[in-house]
Amino acid sequence: MTHTKRFQPSEILLMGPGPSCVYPAVYRALGLPTLGHLDPDFIDLMDDTAERLRTAFGTRNRLTMALSGTGSAGMEASFVNFVEPGDRVLVAANGVFGMRMADVAERLGAAVDRLDFEWGKPVDVETVRARIESEPPYTMVGVVHAETSTGALTDVSAIGRIVRESGALYLVDTVTGLGGLPVAVDEWGADIVYSGTQKCLSCPPGLAPFTCSDRAVAKLSSRTGKVPNWYLDLSMIVQYWSGDGARAYHHTAPINMIYGLNAALGCLLDEGIEAVIARHRNAHERLVNGLEDLGLGMLVAPEHRLPMLNSVTVPDGVDEADIRKRLRREHHIEIGAGLGPLAGKVWRIGLMGHTARAENVDRLLDAFRDSLSGCV
Amino acid sequence: MTHTKRFQPSEILLMGPGPSCVYPAVYRALGLPTLGHLDPDFIDLMDDTAERLRTAFGTRNRLTMALSGTGSAGMEASFVNFVEPGDRVLVAANGVFGMRMADVAERLGAAVDRLDFEWGKPVDVETVRARIESEPPYTMVGVVHAETSTGALTDVSAIGRIVRESGALYLVDTVTGLGGLPVAVDEWGADIVYSGTQKCLSCPPGLAPFTCSDRAVAKLSSRTGKVPNWYLDLSMIVQYWSGDGARAYHHTAPINMIYGLNAALGCLLDEGIEAVIARHRNAHERLVNGLEDLGLGMLVAPEHRLPMLNSVTVPDGVDEADIRKRLRREHHIEIGAGLGPLAGKVWRIGLMGHTARAENVDRLLDAFRDSLSGCV
Repeated sequence: MTHTKRFQPSEILLMGPGPSCVYPAVYRALGLPTLGHLDPDFIDLMDDTAERLRTAFGTRNRLTMALSGTGSAGMEASFVNFVEPGDRVLVAANGVFGMRMADVAERLGAAVDRLDFEWGKPVDVETVRARIESEPPYTMVGVVHAETSTGALTDVSAIGRIVRESGALYLVDTVTGLGGLPVAVDEWGADIVYSGTQKCLSCPPGLAPFTCSDRAVAKLSSRTGKVPNWYLDLSMIVQYWSGDGARAYHHTAPINMIYGLNAALGCLLDEGIEAVIARHRNAHERLVNGLEDLGLGMLVAPEHRLPMLNSVTVPDGVDEADIRKRLRREHHIEIGAGLGPLAGKVWRIGLMGHTARAENVDRLLDAFRDSLSGCV
Repeated sequence: MTHTKRFQPSEILLMGPGPSCVYPAVYRALGLPTLGHLDPDFIDLMDDTAERLRTAFGTRNRLTMALSGTGSAGMEASFVNFVEPGDRVLVAANGVFGMRMADVAERLGAAVDRLDFEWGKPVDVETVRARIESEPPYTMVGVVHAETSTGALTDVSAIGRIVRESGALYLVDTVTGLGGLPVAVDEWGADIVYSGTQKCLSCPPGLAPFTCSDRAVAKLSSRTGKVPNWYLDLSMIVQYWSGDGARAYHHTAPINMIYGLNAALGCLLDEGIEAVIARHRNAHERLVNGLEDLGLGMLVAPEHRLPMLNSVTVPDGVDEADIRKRLRREHHIEIGAGLGPLAGKVWRIGLMGHTARAENVDRLLDAFRDSLSGCV
């Protein structure tokens, strides 16, 4: 007897700040037969997934894995493992995710300096340099590569040179950058880097790709107490993900989500990282040109724009929420709202992973033209 | 160009301690089109999922949801939200998961009393009563309903009466019980209860069904400081899962996993909770009888045995790991090893959810007979 409703979602073109449209190969992978979390074939898949992540991240870090939570769990793991109460942490914040970093670190008892930058602008490299040079040493410096809340790109490579020279651990959030922008963890000198699956990797949300350097592992090993978070304690998780000898059970890994991530990384590597990045850039340029034709402007200056997250200024007199609802209802397209000080002032249009294609841009522009007609 | 390997797992009969075999409807649900985490249709699905969870848990708790991590994240959330440093916590431990509870609570600075019981036996109700009555008040008392590491069932209802009388919050782990044994959160007087998806619900791992009472919410609201875990801070997560008014973005929910959980709960409710529980019991009895015919004995006394997790004593002279490997390689069946003091001494045979069927029991018994021939 079937008395419960069976869910059948519509096909929505996902052009918000994530989740993005999912590759067909990923949908297929999610429904493959579940294996045990210690099954030899699953262990092989974990190894293969870690290796694909190393390629995507641009790193040879041994400790590279997918954490069993969304991108925000990656942020949590980055602080709770590597920061102890009283440690001095500098966070450069130019949007929601930099502010979240500071909140996470403060909850753990770190002494947090938050260096704020205008929303919609990148973190300024020289301001970070001046702060680091004028202060006692920081234990960690955190910055967001691609700020999803605004669409601004920060030069994490230049900041990396300064942070490494200072001796601090360098933490980079590339939740939105990975798979859509060049990511080079080792070249950046980044010690701790996390991402999410539901942005440019085009897998549903649920895992946090994560990597950290030997310097970070040394800090973890020299902690005075246990990590105050059993679930995300990397010193134990590594014994499950590590390639050395027998795998020790920690928690039961999200098996089918890892199938999905493995397939998503397969799509990225098959097409080629450079080609996927070029596809993001081309879609972005097509979108910006089309929006300009519609009389719409961008929040972020051209040289600092993310290709995969486009903040579009809402014209005076237009009800931004009403336009979003019409796009969703009449055109089956999702775009995102502004957050914090940008609420009501911008739309956020995502061109992430599988979504970043000319035909999707054209469909959105047509829908925008239709929805805005009479408004602007 | 396809240069990355496409993964194609074998169909393995999952008879270990979880994950269990997944319902076909759940596999289908996992691959449905991804929606945005604030999409109105997805919000409706969250509400429906929460309501299905209330039915499964036997509760009217408003704060009922699926947390974005595996069952262990449910345990972490149970302590980090409701315990503050210095709080007195009593944990009754009769296996791995009770010990894990104590570890989690200690990492958060709680003053933990661990009351140990023999592995393979239930937590003794009168011993818990005596400890509670002889000690200053505890803030929280934690116990495991169905100990996955041993296969022993504890009378959490009887313990609940004692704990409620004492004024402590009552925490129950029913990761392995939910969907396979009667669960009655409100009748038990349990304040904080979590589970996992990959046991008797027969969904892949990745979410933690969770519920808590108004008394627990009051403790959360009266905290002196912020929850020292941003990712699992229920005071924020509730604003995303709650039915009241607009949903506030916290983190991006694991959309497709929630599709899977919703479908798994649909399978449970369609068949009927009572019928599914009876199916577990019948499969268990068939297994125990068949094992006895093979000359194999059970670790746990008959009156305390879990139907869904059967610890079978390894006969003298038999290499337990070798038998498990043969079952996996030659018969495509996974069973589990013993943990901690039971390593090498027991096999753990799961009969969880979709796995708990006579034909699976018979297939395992045949495979055991074949693999053990010449050994016993």
